[in-house]
Amino acid sequence: MTDTPHPLYARHVETLTRALTAITERGYWSAYPESPSPRVYGETAAADGKAAFEAYLNGDFPLDQPGGGDRVATETSPFGVELGVRYPHPGVDELVSAASAALPAWRDAGPQTRIGVCLEILDRLHKHVFELANAVQFTSGQAFVMAFQAGGAHALDRALESLAYAYAEMTRHPGTAGWEKAAGKGDPLRMTKTFHVVPRGVALVVGCNTFPTWNSYPGLFASLATGNPVIVKPHPRAVLPLAITVKYAREVLAEAGFDPNLMLLAAEAPGEKLASSLALHPAVKIVDFTGSTEYGDWLEANARQASVYTEKAGLNTVVIDSTDDFAGLCRNLGFTLTLYSGQMCTTSQNILIPADGIETDQGHKSFDEVAGGIAAAVGKLTADAARGVELTGAIVNDGVLERLDEVTKVGAAVLESRTVEHPSFPGAVVRTPAVVKVSADDTATYGREWFGPISFVIPTRSTGHSLEILRSTVGEKGALTAGVYSTDEAVLDAAEAVAIEVGVHLSCNLTGGVFVNQSAAFSDFHGSGANAAANAALTDGAYVANRFRIVQSRRHA
Amino acid sequence: MTDTPHPLYARHVETLTRALTAITERGYWSAYPESPSPRVYGETAAADGKAAFEAYLNGDFPLDQPGGGDRVATETSPFGVELGVRYPHPGVDELVSAASAALPAWRDAGPQTRIGVCLEILDRLHKHVFELANAVQFTSGQAFVMAFQAGGAHALDRALESLAYAYAEMTRHPGTAGWEKAAGKGDPLRMTKTFHVVPRGVALVVGCNTFPTWNSYPGLFASLATGNPVIVKPHPRAVLPLAITVKYAREVLAEAGFDPNLMLLAAEAPGEKLASSLALHPAVKIVDFTGSTEYGDWLEANARQASVYTEKAGLNTVVIDSTDDFAGLCRNLGFTLTLYSGQMCTTSQNILIPADGIETDQGHKSFDEVAGGIAAAVGKLTADAARGVELTGAIVNDGVLERLDEVTKVGAAVLESRTVEHPSFPGAVVRTPAVVKVSADDTATYGREWFGPISFVIPTRSTGHSLEILRSTVGEKGALTAGVYSTDEAVLDAAEAVAIEVGVHLSCNLTGGVFVNQSAAFSDFHGSGANAAANAALTDGAYVANRFRIVQSRRHA
Repeated sequence: MTDTPHPLYARHVETLTRALTAITERGYWSAYPESPSPRVYGETAAADGKAAFEAYLNGDFPLDQPGGGDRVATETSPFGVELGVRYPHPGVDELVSAASAALPAWRDAGPQTRIGVCLEILDRLHKHVFELANAVQFTSGQAFVMAFQAGGAHALDRALESLAYAYAEMTRHPGTAGWEKAAGKGDPLRMTKTFHVVPRGVALVVGCNTFPTWNSYPGLFASLATGNPVIVKPHPRAVLPLAITVKYAREVLAEAGFDPNLMLLAAEAPGEKLASSLALHPAVKIVDFTGSTEYGDWLEANARQASVYTEKAGLNTVVIDSTDDFAGLCRNLGFTLTLYSGQMCTTSQNILIPADGIETDQGHKSFDEVAGGIAAAVGKLTADAARGVELTGAIVNDGVLERLDEVTKVGAAVLESRTVEHPSFPGAVVRTPAVVKVSADDTATYGREWFGPISFVIPTRSTGHSLEILRSTVGEKGALTAGVYSTDEAVLDAAEAVAIEVGVHLSCNLTGGVFVNQSAAFSDFHGSGANAAANAALTDGAYVANRFRIVQSRRHA
Repeated sequence: MTDTPHPLYARHVETLTRALTAITERGYWSAYPESPSPRVYGETAAADGKAAFEAYLNGDFPLDQPGGGDRVATETSPFGVELGVRYPHPGVDELVSAASAALPAWRDAGPQTRIGVCLEILDRLHKHVFELANAVQFTSGQAFVMAFQAGGAHALDRALESLAYAYAEMTRHPGTAGWEKAAGKGDPLRMTKTFHVVPRGVALVVGCNTFPTWNSYPGLFASLATGNPVIVKPHPRAVLPLAITVKYAREVLAEAGFDPNLMLLAAEAPGEKLASSLALHPAVKIVDFTGSTEYGDWLEANARQASVYTEKAGLNTVVIDSTDDFAGLCRNLGFTLTLYSGQMCTTSQNILIPADGIETDQGHKSFDEVAGGIAAAVGKLTADAARGVELTGAIVNDGVLERLDEVTKVGAAVLESRTVEHPSFPGAVVRTPAVVKVSADDTATYGREWFGPISFVIPTRSTGHSLEILRSTVGEKGALTAGVYSTDEAVLDAAEAVAIEVGVHLSCNLTGGVFVNQSAAFSDFHGSGANAAANAALTDGAYVANRFRIVQSRRHA
């Protein structure tokens, strides 16, 4: 209902405009430099960020919000560093009523003001990106550079992308419109119509352990920008990155004259099931979740009063048919398997290779040579502990270690997982990837997700057979990524046809510096919403359009 | 995957372009003239359409689709005319497999071709609009002009509106994009990305008895345009309008070189529960439904594999505070209550008036004078049987008659419903509206929907009390429309604030030729999706965005 946007809108309108262009072009663009170099961020930025991070440790996290009386500390760093940050521990009703009370003024501020404030929050977070990167590193187990990029710059890019879609969607209709209809010989009928963007209610974001910011930001900012107060429920082992996010968001909201309870942290005690209690609250109308299929399915089935956006597990698959760059293929896939010890929802798990081998620029390669080539590339990347750990990071939780044990019993190791001593963090749990050969008949094994540094090489009767497995396994269980290597256009087309059928994004012949497990904001969609791995994509029109509704009023002009 | 659009795209691109402008402006526009005058449609159009309609009666409906061996006839005209049209009676699997087989080529044809074909279908239907109008009239009980407008021209406008949104949404991203990212001192990384618009699967449209075309077309065409084959399950008492729709759609699809099974009629035998069987089929991914709250809620709760769009019941409410045109108020509301005997999902049911009356241009009017003025306006419109029936039409089913009986027991009649003999159709069941006074405490009565020509006038303590009832009843049960009459800007603002809060579209001070129960395509949204009466609006971005997904492939350029 406010006509003049907040000055923050004008401050950031250039960024918004560029982002709006980017989402219509979907070429390369980035607003937040991904290099943590001092040449980009200044000489003291890294040290300042580290210090800010360390200042949080073993203390009460500075967050002035409901529920601050009681405190919880639930984090254990995969790097073995003691964290001990104590967070406010509010109850469900406390959170929901504080969020609900903040809604009307935020709704009435209108799309431009809300976008301006959200862009200022991104800007504020960017100013603290090293602090954020440290928090992501030490909670997720990502190595620093990856934590800086995926958890910092790229997460901010994804947030901005989602703000651009939200803004485009909210403003595709005018705020008011004149309507004039001829009425026979009399005066025309004249009406003035006002179209209000109305949020759905309270939004809940349920974060994950491995990508606390990257996976949470798109939903978080899409909900906030469209007028919904957001309750952020972090994974109990990765609270700090989202606590920092909430802290700076509340700071900006208050500075801009809004109720800071538009964003609230919902840290939980062990076993509290706070996400479930919040997700079922009648006032919660939007839920964003990244995590297990089991819990995602539960949310979809039970949080019926809400729109539920889930990213769950899947069977990311690579079909290898032939290549004109065998070394590049091995290097590229080796990097994918090694990065963050394969603890990405996009890491390839099932690698399908014809049993009688493939044609390459180095001549015919047998199945074992292809599997061995990929394994050797992993081996090379992880041979030196000091360099290896900067790719693998640390193991996020014991479940991954248990699967690494279990997998030794299900197939023949092409590459065994090694335990590595981290040169800088003696307490860190570091493991190199396992590559295991299993039969194409063994769908009981490779037909389920083995989250972590575990991949299967699977001999198939032919590339046709490989594509059939791609179709059946991803058709049933879903996937976020698929890859294909072939020098034959017909095979690439056939793979693309299967990818379209089962709704998975396909990367073809990646042999250089682009990897199947990485998606670029503003260009690549993450997930499709077209198979069981996710019911939505980051970030498109469908992701934002239903986070608000339009309510109109009309009267004679 | 086809690059050159079908010539039908070029044939209709001008209409599309105009419609795309209309949905961004949301001012007045219409593509299909609403006047059935011979000056607009030609001297023979009305007679030709009537003859075409009559040719269907008491015969096998000409539809060459799966399930044609067995036939069902389930319609009974509210006008007492024998219909006896026999429709193909396919089984669920027959329908779903035929639809599924038609999907790939339609998907691969791309957005422009699909839109071109859909626009040609609208054009074909428009050429047969009188035939369609007769079918709507004699199945729904609408009077002819209303059947022509709401069931013909306006339904086509709403379909076109939905096609425009679908096209805008499918093409907001390019089909292909180049991506180039600097890579240190080496060559930049260059990728080509292809973004495929991929349908969700088979779409189901469940039609209603009262508005078989108007309520079905937006979902039907949004689904078809975005690549989903559509199974059309009409209400057993209003099959013909949708059978005609399917017939011409199949004709156009086949002419354009596509499998006509992209649109299929699913007529059912009594008690067959075909909608439920179809809605639960795993291949059915989209369901559009208009009808009872009970069944809409069942669909939302059970058709979990699908995106379900529902329009259900609600408590349409008018708050009367004051007016500077008392006669206009009475005329306007009288018309609303009379039109199609109030058998519209948008007709006002609860009219809230301060017990001690209101200020008007005719001086103070007591509660009884206001209620009486509205009743008198209804009486005037229905006094002459021949003119009255052209407004009221006929009663759609026995449930309406039962409620007209029941309502005589719950309150004091301000206006009793009369039975009218239809001058042209002796078998028609015609009833004039009942206006009944009930206490503001009697929420057990006015807090549920009384579909049909039944409205309540409710004395309140004040306009503030009226607004409180608007908030509580619509907040709980939903509504598609709300109205307010006041000369006081503060009251209008307060009403608008409540409308925003409970997510209902508000019409202010309607005293002329615009009515609270009518929404204009391209300008007014129908339903908001923001309260219990509907989980979506006709027609906006959210209505189309999730009917398809984007699946991308990328390779090095």
